[in-house]
Amino acid sequence: MEPPTALGLRAKARCDQLGEAPYSEADDHLVRRFLTAAHRAALDALSGWMEAAGMGVHIDPAANLIGRYEGRKAGAPALVIGSHIDTVRNGGRYDGALGVMLGLECVEALSAAGIRLSFAIEVIAFGDEEGSRFPSSMVCSRALAGVVDEQVLTMADGDGVTLAQALIEFGLPADDLTGAAREADTVLAFLEAHIEQGPVLEAEDLPIGVVSAIAAQERLKVRFSGTAGHAGTTPMSLRRDPGPAAAEAILAVERLCAGGEDGLVGTVGRIEALPGAYNVIPGSVTLTLDVRAETEAARDDAVAEIATALEAIAQQRGLELDIQLMQSLPASPCDPTLTALLSNAVRQIGVTPRKLASGAGHDAMVMAGLCPTAMLFIRCAGGISHNPAESVKPEDVAIAARAMLAFIANLETRQNAWEAERGE
Amino acid sequence: MEPPTALGLRAKARCDQLGEAPYSEADDHLVRRFLTAAHRAALDALSGWMEAAGMGVHIDPAANLIGRYEGRKAGAPALVIGSHIDTVRNGGRYDGALGVMLGLECVEALSAAGIRLSFAIEVIAFGDEEGSRFPSSMVCSRALAGVVDEQVLTMADGDGVTLAQALIEFGLPADDLTGAAREADTVLAFLEAHIEQGPVLEAEDLPIGVVSAIAAQERLKVRFSGTAGHAGTTPMSLRRDPGPAAAEAILAVERLCAGGEDGLVGTVGRIEALPGAYNVIPGSVTLTLDVRAETEAARDDAVAEIATALEAIAQQRGLELDIQLMQSLPASPCDPTLTALLSNAVRQIGVTPRKLASGAGHDAMVMAGLCPTAMLFIRCAGGISHNPAESVKPEDVAIAARAMLAFIANLETRQNAWEAERGE
Repeated sequence: MEPPTALGLRAKARCDQLGEAPYSEADDHLVRRFLTAAHRAALDALSGWMEAAGMGVHIDPAANLIGRYEGRKAGAPALVIGSHIDTVRNGGRYDGALGVMLGLECVEALSAAGIRLSFAIEVIAFGDEEGSRFPSSMVCSRALAGVVDEQVLTMADGDGVTLAQALIEFGLPADDLTGAAREADTVLAFLEAHIEQGPVLEAEDLPIGVVSAIAAQERLKVRFSGTAGHAGTTPMSLRRDPGPAAAEAILAVERLCAGGEDGLVGTVGRIEALPGAYNVIPGSVTLTLDVRAETEAARDDAVAEIATALEAIAQQRGLELDIQLMQSLPASPCDPTLTALLSNAVRQIGVTPRKLASGAGHDAMVMAGLCPTAMLFIRCAGGISHNPAESVKPEDVAIAARAMLAFIANLETRQNAWEAERGE
Repeated sequence: MEPPTALGLRAKARCDQLGEAPYSEADDHLVRRFLTAAHRAALDALSGWMEAAGMGVHIDPAANLIGRYEGRKAGAPALVIGSHIDTVRNGGRYDGALGVMLGLECVEALSAAGIRLSFAIEVIAFGDEEGSRFPSSMVCSRALAGVVDEQVLTMADGDGVTLAQALIEFGLPADDLTGAAREADTVLAFLEAHIEQGPVLEAEDLPIGVVSAIAAQERLKVRFSGTAGHAGTTPMSLRRDPGPAAAEAILAVERLCAGGEDGLVGTVGRIEALPGAYNVIPGSVTLTLDVRAETEAARDDAVAEIATALEAIAQQRGLELDIQLMQSLPASPCDPTLTALLSNAVRQIGVTPRKLASGAGHDAMVMAGLCPTAMLFIRCAGGISHNPAESVKPEDVAIAARAMLAFIANLETRQNAWEAERGE
């Protein structure tokens, strides 16, 4: 087996290589959207590396690149390892790509050591997770998990090109997204490594973390309405100003979420006072509210508490309150058994297995419908992602690769034990 | 003298008459902007009423309509009574116009009774107070007070017509705004009656009030800056969110101004969180702040207290704070002696002379540079102005007319006493 540090260096170097043209659509920043020439160039490079590592390579009808490293028996169910290869506009080099490169590194290490397992390993580069070209996101993992709606084929990008047309231009059939669907018995498990996109690991001085779940989320729109008035002629005592009510609401969200557990976070991202002039007391103030937690119960409790606080504020100030639910997404827990294997692997290489919920969505969330999933987070500088400043340390990538190899070994041990049991 | 109620009815009825085409530019709402055909139609109607009341009428080079009712001696200095005849878009019928009509009513009452005074009375309809056609406001009173900058002649309206061109189309010289300036010794005093545009008189069940000063005003732009971040992946404890800081600031403004004296009011009219998305913790939040008080000292104290509170908030939360002064207008106190005469007049007709600061600007503020000024406020329904719902009670208008006539009598008494003194 190659020394771990070399593994880390190569995975990061490959992400860096793919950070520029022709692997980016732009010369001066990184953007690699679904089914573009930059996407094709990235798949060509990856295919070469996969083949060099002894993998059989193919592109499925949803433009997922899949390299397969057979197990001891040909055709065995596969541990699928990977992430997405697309980026947002002006994105970073590691969000997505690093998870693909780490899968490749694991296979290269096994291959170099001549190790074959009771299961196959497939390394996958999903073509679209970010949704940065077409209006829908995670089209490719949804196709693989067999939950894609073929209506997405009629979606058009900013230039009016439909997904169907783009697939044809990429050399794929225009109407066979369902052909990418995998039978559940061909997939043993899914492992995704991804940069954290948050500051927790950095704050706790940990190189990697184990994802417990992808958070449940709700988006709400909150509006306090009072009476607009002249800023100069209306005494403070005669105002029905929704501004201070909105202010109390923002502080209530902060207080209730800061005191919460289960990864509870609440964010007021947009604030609008109308009519919105220096010299007019607002008639209404609208806030957006984004609440996430590891479990739906924790999220729902928080939303209910916030709503109660907001109603009290409106009542005390004699204002109207309108709360609209805009979006509700369930939590997507990672598989407990698989996650325990991953936590053990992290502990085995000498790192405290910090569990944390993922506030952002990932392909693993979709893959959970097909097979057990586990996710490994890698510390990123300042928690920054979707930004050219995105950065990871090579030593953290090396630790991630070691943890993944230890996870593969743990999975092999469990599979062998199960096979032995079944053999009795 | 006509019975007071008739006076009130006629003044209000004339405002109502001027509330429609051809005195409005629009058929379905009221808008009468400077130097439009609607403005001309209003001046034609007013001229007729002025002449019928025995006044000499002329239009000055700034398009101010001036009707003069001579005193016992021709050419005596004048008490100027009036307000503006222009409106905002979709405005109300009484803001401005009522003050002109009340001046006219006073003269009609004196004329009908055959009374001539030691001073002349001039009724003035300023052509532009609102600034609803050209970017600058109060051009006409500034011209009369001799403080207009002739550069305003190059200002263009929304159709690209300059003020100079509009003056020519109105039949006036293009370059003689300074020709409207009055010598100080021709103007004894200025009295403006105006709807309150605020809810104080209604709340205190008073028909009229005496203006102590036009408030000192400051406009500030306040920005709290922190660190933008992912709403899902950044725990509450690791955020540098400027939103809650802005919320505390809004509440500090409310608390400090509600506890203030001297007509202190503070308003946050505009609130903007950037980048402004559901799923992004804001990187900055900007607030506008409008602070007014009867005196500059009271305003400055409040602004200083607010700034101190904001700095403490920023420091406690580890955020950057930027406070920019956008505009500072001095207070314009009404003349104490003249205001005492007006308060006495209000008391004489049986109304408690409630003194209140005007939070809004008025022509009287500009005229204060030329002569002593006094202002009378008239209760308006709900404090609403700049709106078709603007409304006054006829009995309140009658009380205002009686107060103004009593004021004129008090002024005459004082002038006669002074003349007697000088005669000694």
